[in-house]
Amino acid sequence: MRKPLPRLPLLLLLQGILNLFGIPDGQHLLRGRLGQVGDRGRGDLPDRRTGFGAHQLRRHDLTRASVGTAESCEAADEHGLLVVTEVMEIAQIEGMIPYVDLFQLGARNMQNFNLLRELGNTRTPVLMKRGIAATIEEVLLSAEYILSGGNYDLMLCERGIRTYETYTRNTMDISAIPVLKKLTHLPIIADPSHGVGIRDLVPPMALASVAAGADGLIMEMHPNPDKAMSDGAQSLYPEQLTKLVAQLRQLAPVVGRTVA
Amino acid sequence: MRKPLPRLPLLLLLQGILNLFGIPDGQHLLRGRLGQVGDRGRGDLPDRRTGFGAHQLRRHDLTRASVGTAESCEAADEHGLLVVTEVMEIAQIEGMIPYVDLFQLGARNMQNFNLLRELGNTRTPVLMKRGIAATIEEVLLSAEYILSGGNYDLMLCERGIRTYETYTRNTMDISAIPVLKKLTHLPIIADPSHGVGIRDLVPPMALASVAAGADGLIMEMHPNPDKAMSDGAQSLYPEQLTKLVAQLRQLAPVVGRTVA
Amino acid sequence: MRKPLPRLPLLLLLQGILNLFGIPDGQHLLRGRLGQVGDRGRGDLPDRRTGFGAHQLRRHDLTRASVGTAESCEAADEHGLLVVTEVMEIAQIEGMIPYVDLFQLGARNMQNFNLLRELGNTRTPVLMKRGIAATIEEVLLSAEYILSGGNYDLMLCERGIRTYETYTRNTMDISAIPVLKKLTHLPIIADPSHGVGIRDLVPPMALASVAAGADGLIMEMHPNPDKAMSDGAQSLYPEQLTKLVAQLRQLAPVVGRTVA
Amino acid sequence: MRKPLPRLPLLLLLQGILNLFGIPDGQHLLRGRLGQVGDRGRGDLPDRRTGFGAHQLRRHDLTRASVGTAESCEAADEHGLLVVTEVMEIAQIEGMIPYVDLFQLGARNMQNFNLLRELGNTRTPVLMKRGIAATIEEVLLSAEYILSGGNYDLMLCERGIRTYETYTRNTMDISAIPVLKKLTHLPIIADPSHGVGIRDLVPPMALASVAAGADGLIMEMHPNPDKAMSDGAQSLYPEQLTKLVAQLRQLAPVVGRTVA
Repeated sequence: MRKPLPRLPLLLLLQGILNLFGIPDGQHLLRGRLGQVGDRGRGDLPDRRTGFGAHQLRRHDLTRASVGTAESCEAADEHGLLVVTEVMEIAQIEGMIPYVDLFQLGARNMQNFNLLRELGNTRTPVLMKRGIAATIEEVLLSAEYILSGGNYDLMLCERGIRTYETYTRNTMDISAIPVLKKLTHLPIIADPSHGVGIRDLVPPMALASVAAGADGLIMEMHPNPDKAMSDGAQSLYPEQLTKLVAQLRQLAPVVGRTVA
Repeated sequence: MRKPLPRLPLLLLLQGILNLFGIPDGQHLLRGRLGQVGDRGRGDLPDRRTGFGAHQLRRHDLTRASVGTAESCEAADEHGLLVVTEVMEIAQIEGMIPYVDLFQLGARNMQNFNLLRELGNTRTPVLMKRGIAATIEEVLLSAEYILSGGNYDLMLCERGIRTYETYTRNTMDISAIPVLKKLTHLPIIADPSHGVGIRDLVPPMALASVAAGADGLIMEMHPNPDKAMSDGAQSLYPEQLTKLVAQLRQLAPVVGRTVA
Repeated sequence: MRKPLPRLPLLLLLQGILNLFGIPDGQHLLRGRLGQVGDRGRGDLPDRRTGFGAHQLRRHDLTRASVGTAESCEAADEHGLLVVTEVMEIAQIEGMIPYVDLFQLGARNMQNFNLLRELGNTRTPVLMKRGIAATIEEVLLSAEYILSGGNYDLMLCERGIRTYETYTRNTMDISAIPVLKKLTHLPIIADPSHGVGIRDLVPPMALASVAAGADGLIMEMHPNPDKAMSDGAQSLYPEQLTKLVAQLRQLAPVVGRTVA
Repeated sequence: MRKPLPRLPLLLLLQGILNLFGIPDGQHLLRGRLGQVGDRGRGDLPDRRTGFGAHQLRRHDLTRASVGTAESCEAADEHGLLVVTEVMEIAQIEGMIPYVDLFQLGARNMQNFNLLRELGNTRTPVLMKRGIAATIEEVLLSAEYILSGGNYDLMLCERGIRTYETYTRNTMDISAIPVLKKLTHLPIIADPSHGVGIRDLVPPMALASVAAGADGLIMEMHPNPDKAMSDGAQSLYPEQLTKLVAQLRQLAPVVGRTVA
């Protein structure tokens, strides 16, 4: 059994937060003052950030995304936000590095080993989402592709697996959180928004994830979800978010954590 | 949206508790003073309890189980315990009724419709476990077989579903808890012991279940799990249980609950 | 590796065949002159049959089913049909024995161990369907409950398992057929009607099952499926059945079999 | 319902065939004289072929693979073989085009949309394997990424999905074959080697796939499987292959096909 790292405050990553400031198209992640994440050796995530629209990269080619980048970066900078964006091919990496605080590797690419290897050669932190049918063992094997390149700023993310149950979008494997905590020192983030895909289920699943030992949460929020470019049905209203953060503050000490 | 019932204290059902008193063979459930469960009209669970060994019924025929019953009942009575036992065929029901506080319907029998219908004709409370591959909709359909007979003292139990993941014994579908809370007034119990099948994962999954809205927990404990007749690997040590109950006391108010 | 039994002709069980003779309500199985099944010691299935409506037992209580029985039995007798019916509880067994040629144990009851044990105490052949989430190992364990009582006239039936795929009703695990053939001497029957739940997919899946080594098929047919009491959407038209049987006659020799 | 294409002979793709000629390291696919594949407008696969080791690309970088290529190409040319190789990142495409007759897109990359789009811009035929947890609908959506670029030489491949069953490596969804045949004109290939992962199960599953309507098979073979660089446990012995091809010749006419 490895010696546990000091328990850091919960990391709360909120997609869509720039919408609060009237910057509508693109999805962004807020670190704000809510928390920070530990890693295996380098300290916390860098402190100042620029801006980048995760969603744009999925919709457009890299050139147009880069244009979007400059604008989003300014906005993020202005509001002190962390920039997280999904990377989908090797050719995007180099252009993204100056703008991005945290690469997100999507569930569909968790076994895109060539991409993993290249991310391992960068020194930008990576949030790797569990593949929709990946075993816990396969999550760790994929992580090794990144770690073996020397990039230790890696977070793993439970975001739901595919089962026969169709009521929820996916089935969140909450037990994977304590299992992964046992098997690795890497921070484990939970993504209840994609895990269940239904707004009203996000708060209870966020609480459950933290109760089970998650080091952080990634959630979607939107001041006007019906007008969201994507994932509106699973985006929290701002008032839901406020209530949830209050509950997380109460819950964190039960499992020896804090909310910054 | 239905008007929510008043929130009752969490129900904690502990299998194997008679072992603490030196009564070794058989599995029993403790209500003790930890909580009680609400139902759709009849009030709390009955107050007097007798004793019955759930496990024996699986191993022996009804006659021998009835012999075991008398002894277990006395012990349970003496220690103020609730008696819960698994019922596996129609012919067992009548003989069990005088001794049992709560019928447990196992996951394998969740779609044994003839048995369900007969349990609906009794007035003994029933804890119905979700089938290992049952959808949430099928859980509700099976519940109707019991309710339609007029037995409203029904609790539903999430105890893990079968997925491709083999690290844990089953995959606990924690999201089924808030979904079921939305769709029905019936109390929802979580069974982390069977859900994960690994002792050290039981406490985090118990906390997660309550954080997600569970009305109660059913867990296995044993003073000497290596000598347990069954399910030793997932039985909590007494000291783990003590620590967990302390955490549950802290957690309950976050979700508007108490631990009695 | 056990010495293989002599290869018998394919067994074709056709549900709904009495409808061809204007006996509309109830589902019946035809053996007719198409084939017969081997077992582990007793020879072929008995040769003369009576009549029984499988479907009625699901809908009505035993008394009314028994009434239905007498009529169906006469019809079956008259047309030389085999009578197969689903048994759902222990109390039904005794009353059914005089009328039934083959007990069908439904997928939902594959782990209803008390019922299995009682069926093992009879000498009526049993067709045991694989549970919707049962592993191959669990199929064999359930089979042991019947065999250990001395009833060796047991056939196992692959009828589809539950997966994430929703296009078909279930996912037929065709590979379970050669696996089971390797692990046991028991005849393996395939049920493409329930396996896929879509009429036009039944013939290709029937052919695939036999190509993979199945000893027989159970299929639903109806002269007017839109008016079928149940399962109309997966019932073959008579002309589809005629064409399929012709294809099976061609296919059987490829895998060393015949169609009688 | 679309008008069916003329039925072409079954396509048999055999990985590892170069080993028969003493060219040991690398996996190759043989078309030989066994058959050819239809497409949506362009005619048969190209007739001239070169040589390429699929496996090498997985193990080495592109430069070394290119070296391997030249040798393998010569060997393939000499023996009249088709060259199929897995492509794993966009940067590999251009270098591969001159050497490759058929790109294989692995199951792990079925939703690597950027790679799919680039393959759609080539005019080299593509064999796209179904993702391990992909629905039939998702297979068709991924196919659109390739077709929309104008590359119509696309074959889809059922190679097993992930279920709870662990006896076989994956569970081959044989019913996906007739479903896909109904929904698209694209040829459907079955991959029983990866589908089950056990040598002795490959022949029955190959027969089942063709009986269900598959347009072709991809299988692994090796003259000495214990010494295979990978996948030895699922590679057919040459004599198994010979017997299977004889059975396929008999089976093909039952479903209106031929083996060339």
